Amino acid sequence: MTADKISPQTILDAAGRIAPHVNHTPVLTSTAVDRLFGGKVFFKCENFQKVGAFKARGATNAVLSLDRELLVRGVATHSSGNHAQALSWAASLVHAKAYVVMPGNSSKVKVAAVREYGGIITFCEPTLAARESTLAEVIGQTGATEIHPYNNERIIAGQATAALELLDEVDGLDLVMAPVGGGGLLSGTALAVSFFRPDARVIAAEPEQACDAFLSFTRRTFVPSVNPQTMADGLRTSLGTLTFPIILEHVHSIVTVSEESIASALRFIWERMKIIIEPSSAVPVAALLEGKVRIANKRAGIILSGGNADLDDLPWIRHE
Amino acid sequence: MTADKISPQTILDAAGRIAPHVNHTPVLTSTAVDRLFGGKVFFKCENFQKVGAFKARGATNAVLSLDRELLVRGVATHSSGNHAQALSWAASLVHAKAYVVMPGNSSKVKVAAVREYGGIITFCEPTLAARESTLAEVIGQTGATEIHPYNNERIIAGQATAALELLDEVDGLDLVMAPVGGGGLLSGTALAVSFFRPDARVIAAEPEQACDAFLSFTRRTFVPSVNPQTMADGLRTSLGTLTFPIILEHVHSIVTVSEESIASALRFIWERMKIIIEPSSAVPVAALLEGKVRIANKRAGIILSGGNADLDDLPWIRHE
Repeated sequence: MTADKISPQTILDAAGRIAPHVNHTPVLTSTAVDRLFGGKVFFKCENFQKVGAFKARGATNAVLSLDRELLVRGVATHSSGNHAQALSWAASLVHAKAYVVMPGNSSKVKVAAVREYGGIITFCEPTLAARESTLAEVIGQTGATEIHPYNNERIIAGQATAALELLDEVDGLDLVMAPVGGGGLLSGTALAVSFFRPDARVIAAEPEQACDAFLSFTRRTFVPSVNPQTMADGLRTSLGTLTFPIILEHVHSIVTVSEESIASALRFIWERMKIIIEPSSAVPVAALLEGKVRIANKRAGIILSGGNADLDDLPWIRHE
Repeated sequence: MTADKISPQTILDAAGRIAPHVNHTPVLTSTAVDRLFGGKVFFKCENFQKVGAFKARGATNAVLSLDRELLVRGVATHSSGNHAQALSWAASLVHAKAYVVMPGNSSKVKVAAVREYGGIITFCEPTLAARESTLAEVIGQTGATEIHPYNNERIIAGQATAALELLDEVDGLDLVMAPVGGGGLLSGTALAVSFFRPDARVIAAEPEQACDAFLSFTRRTFVPSVNPQTMADGLRTSLGTLTFPIILEHVHSIVTVSEESIASALRFIWERMKIIIEPSSAVPVAALLEGKVRIANKRAGIILSGGNADLDDLPWIRHE
C-alpha cells in the first residue's frame, strides 16, 4: 500500500461512503478572533463530529471498506484515545468487534467512551513498543484486522474529507492549518488541499514538547517521538511511513508552540467561541497567538480536530 | 407601559430591528441527548449570541428604539452580568454611553466583558435595594435612560425573538423550555410561543435555591427573591411587574431543580454537545435529568440562554 494510491477520487469516494454515518460538521467564525488576528478564520468544527473527533471519518471509511469475512473477526488498533473511540464506534455501525490497545495513561473520558461504544480494551505501557507488541498479541488471539490510527490509506482518505468539506463551504482560502501527531489528519488535509485548492498553503502546528514532525520535516528524515510531554495527548505519536512522504511533499511548513500557548489557546477558544475543544485542537490556534503564523488580511481555515477534553483536568486550574 | 402592548407584530418588528446586529444562532441536536430522554431535543444556542447570551437581543431592541436626543445622554442599568454586557455592547453600536451598576460578587468574566464593550461600571452591594439606589444616583448624575434588564417591553420583545427563530426553524414542537430569573426570556418566549405555536406548552425551570418564580406562579401572587444561593447567577433576580402577568397567563408550569442537578446538567452538555453553556442555561436540562419534565416521544425546544461561564470556577472542580 503506497500513498500514490490516494487520488482525488479516493477522497471523494471516502466522502460518499461515510456521509450517511458521520456529521457534516459546521464551519464557525468569530468576530473577536478575526479582530485579534486581522484576518478571517474559518474553524472546521470536528469537535462536533461523531465520537467528538475527526477520527470518526477515517475509522468509518476503513471499516466500511473491509470485506464481510474480515469484519466477522473484528478490527483492532492501538490508540491514545480518539482513534480508539472512533474505531469502536465505526465497528458498532456494522456490528463488528473492536479490540483496542490503550496506554494506561489515557484520559478517563476517552477510556469510558471506548467502553460505551463497545470497544474491548487491553491496557499497556505508554510506549510505542508496548503498544505494538500488545496489539500483535491481541491480533494473534482474535484474527482481527489491524486498522492503524494513521498509517493506513483508508484512514488518510477518510480524514481528508474534513478539509474537503471545508473547501467546499469556504471559498478562496489562503491557508489551511491542522495539528500534527501521527499525521493522518495532516496528510489527508494536505492531499485534499493540493487536489482541490492548490493555491492554498497547508501549515501544520505541533507542540514543542512533541516536535518530532517538525524535526522530521526540517531534516527531511524520519525522527521518532520519544517520551513526549505535552498536554496535547493526540499529538504524542510519531509520523508514519505513509503520512511522512505526503507531508514532505504537500505541507508548506510546520511550526511548534509552547505548552503555555496551547493552554492559552484552549482557554481562548472556550471563552470566545463557546465551544469545547481538546488541547490538540488548540495547537494551530496557539501558533496564531504566538505570531508564528500570520494571517493579516488572509482567509485561514483551521481544522479543530476534536472536543474530547478531560473536564477534570484543565490546564488553568490547579487541584487540591 | 403594559404587557398588552406586546403583539405578534411587536416581536416581528423587534426581529427586523435587531437582525443586522445580532447572530441568528444555530439550533443543535444530539443523538446522545435524544437517546437518553427518548424524545427529540432542539437546543437554541444563545450561548453563540453576541456577548455570549440572549440578552443581546433585548438590549439591542431597546437601544435602537430610543430617540437620538435620549441616546446622547446614554443608557443605564443594574445587572448581575449578561444584561450589563449586552447593554454596553448594544450602546456601542450607536456610539452611546452605557452606565452599568453591578453587584460586587459578579463573575470576573462578566465584569471584564462589560469593560471591554466600553461599559462604565459602578459596583454595589448584591441586594436589589442597593442596586436600585445606586442606579438612581447614576441616572441623577448623567441623565441616562434606564433600560431595565427584564421589566421593559422592548427588552421582552427582543428576548422573544430567540423563540421566534426556533419556531421558524423547527416544526411541530410540543414544548419549549427556558430558565426563569427576572422573567424577560421566559415572558418573551411564552408570548412568542402563544402567538406563533399555540399548541406547544411553555415550561420554565428554576433553581430550588432561587425559587421565587415557582412560588409566585403557584401562589399567583408576587414573591420576591431574597438572598438566593445558586450557581445559576443569571437566575437570582425577582420577577417584574411586566413579566409576572405574562408568565401567569402563558406559561404552563415552572419546575425547580437542585444545585447538584444543575452541575450535572452543565457537565452533561459540555461533554456531550461540546459547547460551553453557563449554569443558568443548564437549569432546563437539569429538569429533564431529574425527570421533572418528561419528553418521551415529544419534540422539545430548549433555549440555552448563554455561555458566559466562569472557567476558573467549575462546580465539579474543588480549588486548592
